[in-house]
Amino acid sequence: MLRAIVTVMLKKGIFDPQGRAVHNGLESIGFEGVKQVRVGKQLEIDLNLTDRAEAKKMVDEMCDKMLANPVVESFSYEITEV
Amino acid sequence: MLRAIVTVMLKKGIFDPQGRAVHNGLESIGFEGVKQVRVGKQLEIDLNLTDRAEAKKMVDEMCDKMLANPVVESFSYEITEV
Repeated sequence: MLRAIVTVMLKKGIFDPQGRAVHNGLESIGFEGVKQVRVGKQLEIDLNLTDRAEAKKMVDEMCDKMLANPVVESFSYEITEV
Repeated sequence: MLRAIVTVMLKKGIFDPQGRAVHNGLESIGFEGVKQVRVGKQLEIDLNLTDRAEAKKMVDEMCDKMLANPVVESFSYEITEV
């Protein structure tokens, strides 16, 4: 079986309110020296496939159609055997 | 500057409704062969530090105190130079 580990992050320059909230939270409990926090999603998608090329094609399509919003988000992924 | 890439996922065995929703969504738009989807967070934390050991200690503490709920979530991270 193959597993795709997909990371979806807001593009650089897009304001990330969730990251800002985490940053504020960390400062409020005493963490100093944090410059910036960005928050995104990580999806682990287990596929009933054995062919990596096929899996790659499918995950690209999933990201384009549903998992990422191409206007504000970028995605990357890796495919591993499990 | 150092960047910590922190991944927070629900522990194995903990029901993941967000993953289930993504799984259903993928099936509803025609993707077959998906076995399971798990959804977690990825945080990119930029630190005004140069010492990796210090950064590691700080990120461990951040995860323990705020970023992950140890009852239901597990975390992992890597520290890179940026």
